[in-house]
Amino acid sequence: MARVVVDVMLKPEILDPQGQAVQRALPRLGFQGISDVRQGKRFELEVDGPVDEAALARIHELAETFLANTVIEDFVVKVEDAEGSEKVAGAAK
Amino acid sequence: MARVVVDVMLKPEILDPQGQAVQRALPRLGFQGISDVRQGKRFELEVDGPVDEAALARIHELAETFLANTVIEDFVVKVEDAEGSEKVAGAAK
Repeated sequence: MARVVVDVMLKPEILDPQGQAVQRALPRLGFQGISDVRQGKRFELEVDGPVDEAALARIHELAETFLANTVIEDFVVKVEDAEGSEKVAGAAK
Repeated sequence: MARVVVDVMLKPEILDPQGQAVQRALPRLGFQGISDVRQGKRFELEVDGPVDEAALARIHELAETFLANTVIEDFVVKVEDAEGSEKVAGAAK
């Protein structure tokens, strides 16, 4: 079983009030030196069978039609390795 | 300017109704072969200055005290490289 991650973030030109709220709170809480925060969604999909090109194409379609609103959001499909590091497998910006 | 990512996910033993809703909808929408979906939050932090050990320690503390509810959530701190791939720099499980 392999894990594929879909990260969905608001497009850079779309206002992100959640992220802004976090960013403005940081200095007040004693954390300096963070100039911007954006908040988005992360989906972890457990895929049966191999994560080959066909599976990734299917997941890309799934992300495009169902997980992200591509009018206002970008998404990135990533494959997670055993250590938890992630490699980009596809994106829509 | 470097980007550090904090992924916040519900702990595995905590029920994730959002993820379940997505997972149950998939076969109905024509996507087979996804056995589990978990939904969480992703924070992208733009860090002024170098992302050294001290900066990562500060971000770890920030994530622990402010971005994640560590009673029910795990978080992972990752450093993003130029291609958008991510390397784990710290985690709390």
